[in-house]
Amino acid sequence: MDYLLDKPRANCAVVGIYGLEEAATLSYLSLYALQHRGQEATGIVSSDGENLRRHAGKGLVADVFKDRTTFNKLPGKLSIGHNRYSTTGSSTQDNVQPLLVQDHSGPIALAHNGNLTNYHQLRKFLEGEGSLFRTSADSEIILQLLARSHGKDLKSRLFDVIRMVKGAYSLVMMSRDVLVAVRDPRGFRPLCLGKKDDGWIVASESCAFDLLGAEYVRDVRPGEMLVIDENGCESLFFANGDSHAHCIFEFVYFSRPDSLIFGENVDRTRRKLGHVLAAKHHVPKADIVVSVPDSSNTSALGYAHEANINFELGLIRNHYVGRTFIEPEQQLRDFGVKLKFNVVKGVVKGKSIILVDDSIVRGTTLKKLVRLMRRAGAKEIHARISSPPITNPCYYGMDFPTREELVACSRSIEEIKNYIDADSLEYLTAEELLGATSKRVGQDFCTACFTGDYPIEITESEGVVKIES
Amino acid sequence: MDYLLDKPRANCAVVGIYGLEEAATLSYLSLYALQHRGQEATGIVSSDGENLRRHAGKGLVADVFKDRTTFNKLPGKLSIGHNRYSTTGSSTQDNVQPLLVQDHSGPIALAHNGNLTNYHQLRKFLEGEGSLFRTSADSEIILQLLARSHGKDLKSRLFDVIRMVKGAYSLVMMSRDVLVAVRDPRGFRPLCLGKKDDGWIVASESCAFDLLGAEYVRDVRPGEMLVIDENGCESLFFANGDSHAHCIFEFVYFSRPDSLIFGENVDRTRRKLGHVLAAKHHVPKADIVVSVPDSSNTSALGYAHEANINFELGLIRNHYVGRTFIEPEQQLRDFGVKLKFNVVKGVVKGKSIILVDDSIVRGTTLKKLVRLMRRAGAKEIHARISSPPITNPCYYGMDFPTREELVACSRSIEEIKNYIDADSLEYLTAEELLGATSKRVGQDFCTACFTGDYPIEITESEGVVKIES
Amino acid sequence: MDYLLDKPRANCAVVGIYGLEEAATLSYLSLYALQHRGQEATGIVSSDGENLRRHAGKGLVADVFKDRTTFNKLPGKLSIGHNRYSTTGSSTQDNVQPLLVQDHSGPIALAHNGNLTNYHQLRKFLEGEGSLFRTSADSEIILQLLARSHGKDLKSRLFDVIRMVKGAYSLVMMSRDVLVAVRDPRGFRPLCLGKKDDGWIVASESCAFDLLGAEYVRDVRPGEMLVIDENGCESLFFANGDSHAHCIFEFVYFSRPDSLIFGENVDRTRRKLGHVLAAKHHVPKADIVVSVPDSSNTSALGYAHEANINFELGLIRNHYVGRTFIEPEQQLRDFGVKLKFNVVKGVVKGKSIILVDDSIVRGTTLKKLVRLMRRAGAKEIHARISSPPITNPCYYGMDFPTREELVACSRSIEEIKNYIDADSLEYLTAEELLGATSKRVGQDFCTACFTGDYPIEITESEGVVKIES
Amino acid sequence: MDYLLDKPRANCAVVGIYGLEEAATLSYLSLYALQHRGQEATGIVSSDGENLRRHAGKGLVADVFKDRTTFNKLPGKLSIGHNRYSTTGSSTQDNVQPLLVQDHSGPIALAHNGNLTNYHQLRKFLEGEGSLFRTSADSEIILQLLARSHGKDLKSRLFDVIRMVKGAYSLVMMSRDVLVAVRDPRGFRPLCLGKKDDGWIVASESCAFDLLGAEYVRDVRPGEMLVIDENGCESLFFANGDSHAHCIFEFVYFSRPDSLIFGENVDRTRRKLGHVLAAKHHVPKADIVVSVPDSSNTSALGYAHEANINFELGLIRNHYVGRTFIEPEQQLRDFGVKLKFNVVKGVVKGKSIILVDDSIVRGTTLKKLVRLMRRAGAKEIHARISSPPITNPCYYGMDFPTREELVACSRSIEEIKNYIDADSLEYLTAEELLGATSKRVGQDFCTACFTGDYPIEITESEGVVKIES
Repeated sequence: MDYLLDKPRANCAVVGIYGLEEAATLSYLSLYALQHRGQEATGIVSSDGENLRRHAGKGLVADVFKDRTTFNKLPGKLSIGHNRYSTTGSSTQDNVQPLLVQDHSGPIALAHNGNLTNYHQLRKFLEGEGSLFRTSADSEIILQLLARSHGKDLKSRLFDVIRMVKGAYSLVMMSRDVLVAVRDPRGFRPLCLGKKDDGWIVASESCAFDLLGAEYVRDVRPGEMLVIDENGCESLFFANGDSHAHCIFEFVYFSRPDSLIFGENVDRTRRKLGHVLAAKHHVPKADIVVSVPDSSNTSALGYAHEANINFELGLIRNHYVGRTFIEPEQQLRDFGVKLKFNVVKGVVKGKSIILVDDSIVRGTTLKKLVRLMRRAGAKEIHARISSPPITNPCYYGMDFPTREELVACSRSIEEIKNYIDADSLEYLTAEELLGATSKRVGQDFCTACFTGDYPIEITESEGVVKIES
Repeated sequence: MDYLLDKPRANCAVVGIYGLEEAATLSYLSLYALQHRGQEATGIVSSDGENLRRHAGKGLVADVFKDRTTFNKLPGKLSIGHNRYSTTGSSTQDNVQPLLVQDHSGPIALAHNGNLTNYHQLRKFLEGEGSLFRTSADSEIILQLLARSHGKDLKSRLFDVIRMVKGAYSLVMMSRDVLVAVRDPRGFRPLCLGKKDDGWIVASESCAFDLLGAEYVRDVRPGEMLVIDENGCESLFFANGDSHAHCIFEFVYFSRPDSLIFGENVDRTRRKLGHVLAAKHHVPKADIVVSVPDSSNTSALGYAHEANINFELGLIRNHYVGRTFIEPEQQLRDFGVKLKFNVVKGVVKGKSIILVDDSIVRGTTLKKLVRLMRRAGAKEIHARISSPPITNPCYYGMDFPTREELVACSRSIEEIKNYIDADSLEYLTAEELLGATSKRVGQDFCTACFTGDYPIEITESEGVVKIES
Repeated sequence: MDYLLDKPRANCAVVGIYGLEEAATLSYLSLYALQHRGQEATGIVSSDGENLRRHAGKGLVADVFKDRTTFNKLPGKLSIGHNRYSTTGSSTQDNVQPLLVQDHSGPIALAHNGNLTNYHQLRKFLEGEGSLFRTSADSEIILQLLARSHGKDLKSRLFDVIRMVKGAYSLVMMSRDVLVAVRDPRGFRPLCLGKKDDGWIVASESCAFDLLGAEYVRDVRPGEMLVIDENGCESLFFANGDSHAHCIFEFVYFSRPDSLIFGENVDRTRRKLGHVLAAKHHVPKADIVVSVPDSSNTSALGYAHEANINFELGLIRNHYVGRTFIEPEQQLRDFGVKLKFNVVKGVVKGKSIILVDDSIVRGTTLKKLVRLMRRAGAKEIHARISSPPITNPCYYGMDFPTREELVACSRSIEEIKNYIDADSLEYLTAEELLGATSKRVGQDFCTACFTGDYPIEITESEGVVKIES
Repeated sequence: MDYLLDKPRANCAVVGIYGLEEAATLSYLSLYALQHRGQEATGIVSSDGENLRRHAGKGLVADVFKDRTTFNKLPGKLSIGHNRYSTTGSSTQDNVQPLLVQDHSGPIALAHNGNLTNYHQLRKFLEGEGSLFRTSADSEIILQLLARSHGKDLKSRLFDVIRMVKGAYSLVMMSRDVLVAVRDPRGFRPLCLGKKDDGWIVASESCAFDLLGAEYVRDVRPGEMLVIDENGCESLFFANGDSHAHCIFEFVYFSRPDSLIFGENVDRTRRKLGHVLAAKHHVPKADIVVSVPDSSNTSALGYAHEANINFELGLIRNHYVGRTFIEPEQQLRDFGVKLKFNVVKGVVKGKSIILVDDSIVRGTTLKKLVRLMRRAGAKEIHARISSPPITNPCYYGMDFPTREELVACSRSIEEIKNYIDADSLEYLTAEELLGATSKRVGQDFCTACFTGDYPIEITESEGVVKIES
């Protein structure tokens, strides 16, 4: 959720609104609810039936849209929005989504969560044909392909084009009067359909619906394209979406616990991860269960209940720490972690502690937390991780550090335990993790970052010349 | 903690650093750790032995001090800082603390947490004598009195002057080379002394020491003035500080659970509030305990453990909601509360719930939370409040709405229960609350907001002509 | 020069630097010297041989480049820059030049002064072929055409492409290591070549060279393309540039008097306009000559010397009036004009005045100036205009109001005289104007705005759907 | 007028409005017209009869008041305003005027043009008495003295107090419902009274009245205090104002030529300086007269007419150069001057030139202009200065560099001529300068900067400890 945390980054949020007054304001509220999926930049496009208008910028939703009058400039009942972490594309202003272009058919806007794996090949090809790219975002490929398609409407053109791109994509797009939602055939990223009065809402997670008072209808299905216009909501399938590859990390870490994704409550699944962790990786004589807040709270509670050990608030997280802060020039030991977390001494002192975290990337934060807790008097610290060791990069929308920086890449669990100086360390296995979901075991999820099994083959990508502004 | 929450506001944080390199940066970090005590404005003054320099502004610490170069302009090993909620004084730029003035002795800066009860009388008197006030903050009185005192140094002048003011004050002050910390004779607000290497730190709460790697030494005592200079830390008493009136709300709500104030761990006391609440106000057949996050988490956990009922995360708090957001023009039911909190349906559905909150001011938030939880399928909702009904205004540094707006002012507990539509509602009594502390029962705390017993008499205050800028 | 003035708008400035250290800073200084040609937006692109980097924004050069560190991000010895008035294209951020794109060959940047007359046809054609336009600026057409050209280098590709566009263009373009300057076959807008040490400079007007200590070499010729790279400065002709259509308004109003354009000193020509005006349209018994400052100063001086009447400063111009100011809600008579100009009463009182202005568009300003001068006691006011009545729109880069708003469109000179309430009014005729230049009379200049003779035929243009952001 | 120019700085503008709707907006417009007197900061205070409100900041009037809504927060029919160059007091935000305070009588605001010569003595005394100063501006002394005065109203209190301060002051002050204007007994700085409808206007120069459509009534007299309230405009004299010491530099350089000050038209006097310069310091065989624009235009025209030599625009001034610009790291010869001025080569080439400037401070600019003109081909350059050599500091509101930097301090005119490399150089003598005014010769003006005769004795001033923020 935050760059000070040792977590994967680089997911995004998308939202689309059709047929509701103040659609841009509703997009804004939805993006507020989905802020946890991307904090680098945000933007909204709206249509009043004639013109598409856009406001976007770097920063949090609250910062980019802090001026009430912005919404006067975004009229209409049709809107899409986007929160962004950078994946492909440098973090320039140009790459802030939604993208808004005008082709021979008129204006089109697009917001994308995911990562296209054949972007470089397609871009090279299109540039050779004379296409001029305006961004370094992979998402633009779809707009460039569309511009070259001459079908009779957005629906038929997109239907042509969408099969040319490969990878992970939960998309919302709009023209003057049509909202389209598309999910890739493997369904890597979540995308939900909601309803409010006579209008429709599409959003990355269902928690956005709660804020708007909208009703969750169903997930947009893998390989499905929803076309929402004055005739209602039409469903088309451009691919057989039977072979799923949902990102298991959405359950482990990304999504909000109050969301419903992939047909399941995140809270329920995440709690079950805690149960399994307690059942399979128990610490017999521990005194208390402590979570690394906030993302591990649910699985830690699950662990505590299953193990019948008290859950305690041993770490306080400072929510006022934003994306930037100023470090003293002198070295303050464990500075960054202490800015973010403080140990409650009265809770941990003299205790044997089960410390539950949802994942470890570099291991740097956990190592420091263990040290801080020991200094506060913890007797024993047993780390329990509610997911398997991360050993491989993700090509479908998550952003890990280089393979060399992944603590689990070249170390055994025993070595990691020593590195973080825990009394014991255990992870969920991939099987245990998958078993905690209600899906068809081993079939419905992408576990590439744990297992190296990539659902879509990855070819070597080429770099592009950097244009900075 | 936040204006969307139905909580008392208007506490502040103060910090002072003596004898440590980059003192301004250390003040900044301390203010970061104390951000929960005041989010409206912040400022720092430093001294390099010659000049006092100041940087201050409205907004969060992270915003006002986002530029690294600011600290180049705040050199020296002596510094004080302040986070502010407005109490006395309108929220103009002029009132942002620390105040920095220059009198006949040279420059002096001051940061104040509390509220002076004889401000209006003193101001009227001094204006009649020709004093020109630069702010509408009560804190300025101390500087104006000092300017008229001709003692040989800051210590002796302040010793003269401090007995003229009445009310609540935890003060830090500095001249070119002296740091002074003062706490009022009743000790309304906390103030702690810490040590790091050869330097000293004074801060509102001890959690600031943890971030700096400093050691908690002791509280500044009621009626004590600490004078810290090249000769070390000298203690003087300007009043008999035996009759304490610590603000009990510091334990209930204000302070961070990882802090040590009034000689006790906040976490331990707050947890004990939960124990007593469970013991005296139990709900026999409830399924789960849910907290109104984050401030009630500790007492809710205490309740759950005492009652042996599962603590569950039934409400998710959105930490990205800042001080401003844009409301849609159309009415979205319970909009504000939903922006801040979302119910985890899977947790509350079909459950009989004990909902623990630390306090109720207007009752508006709790009413909406109960409604949201019912709509999510909660079977029963039993509200338990870890403090007594608030019925009286505070004159010592807390900011409540008018008496008419206090839900408990003219309503019985039964009526409040009906208003918020809970299945049952119980509060801690004042006796239970005091009994949960380790202090001399009924003697050491101010409970005026619950009981109307004001430790310092309040005379009618007069308004002042408003100067806006 | 300013929107409060009743003058044509919509010229631009371009500059290119090759082979000089701190090229971006030199572009910046040149744009400073050329600020009078466009005050709406400005931008610079530089190349360090690898990457092209851009900084651009709305506002004056001094505002957009107020931060010294901006230039650290614009390294290299190759740079182009642009000052802008909006002509084609709405005034959005996207349209701020230089445009920077990346096509199959790498990054390319472009800055353009002029207006392409077959833009809409070309854009429609290219969009049909799948091109995605990023701006609504006509200038982008050239980049889109280039992207579809597969010649071996920028020179050969541009040589192909440039013949497809029609209209007025003084262009500078750059790739990683080549600077190109192009002027349309009729030479509507000025473009000069300069030299400093081993480097080259291209700029709209020669006054930019003076600031840099560079030497004026010659004009870029109509139909000429200069390719400047490590091999020096190569000249190519893509068109027979014998038939010129220089904008006569450059001499009348746009260019700075200290510039050399179209092979002549602006000062000399402008002064000669005053001579001819005095010779052919004299006022026998006038006391003084007064100029509408600053643009008419030179021709007014010319008039005064020829007529042997004293030139006086009867109008003071307030140079602090920027693009925006706040009007009182109550009506102050002649408010806008008075903010900009004040009459020197001691000068005009009781005098018979020859008021020299270089042009009249709507006539609103002159009407108010006459009124102000009468109120200050002027006895007679004889307006003399150093150009003919403007009766037709310009399609080559100037921006007039609609034909209906042109005061001379449907009024005789007598009627205009009555409208502005002057005692007499005379204009230069087109013949007199052309006769004052040293060019081949009637052959080298575009006089379409006076005569309706358009050097390049104009076909009906089509509107495009507006995308605002 | 500008820091790039080699001119004295540090005058200010004041304005006051009584009894007119939108008084703050009228102050704003007046400050626009008086922008030439101070460009560092600006501010306005208004009263609606109850509250005084203030908006102020650093920068030009157009920048500080760029937001229309600012004026909604400045209601009422009574207002004062100020443009500032720093004289006494560092350039911090605190020193921006008008100052607004509240004393025992209510709110009072003050704007001041001038310099108090006994500031340090008074401040030291008042600090000893317990006064707390909020700014380092000398102007605050008056407010501190007022705060200690217990007369029955502002008029009687100010009447008491004003005799305690010495030096130069043109003051406007206001309470909730009274506007006061005061001019020191010697009348150093101008201050004019105007009338519009039923309202009154006070301003530093009469050019402000023209913009508002107000009528010039008379000057505020030396030693006079005007009290404007619902009873009209009352005149009181607190000193015998017979012995005048008007700043002669107001005629030479500061004031706008369209203003009427000290009872004379600036234009007329400045022109006469040119006449005298031509009569007494003629250059027999020169070809043209060139002015250093804009401030020397009027005297240069006067010279040209008297000498019957053509006035020509040989130097173009770039009005877009603001207070800051970015210098290249490499050295560009005469960079600053060339950014500001460009030589019109066609005008100066081969000519023998009389270059008229109004004053020389350091001589740096004139030296460079001579070099630029020579390089452009000027045959001879004869500098003529329409004031005497500056040899002494000013203590009454002008800001010169240190005595050492004044080119005339230790050099003869011959040496200065050599330094600036002119063919000849002559100044007006003090007698010639005074003779050109219509006042009693040698009696009505302060000429201290030329002659060292100080009308008010100057005692050694003491520094104060600097407080920066």
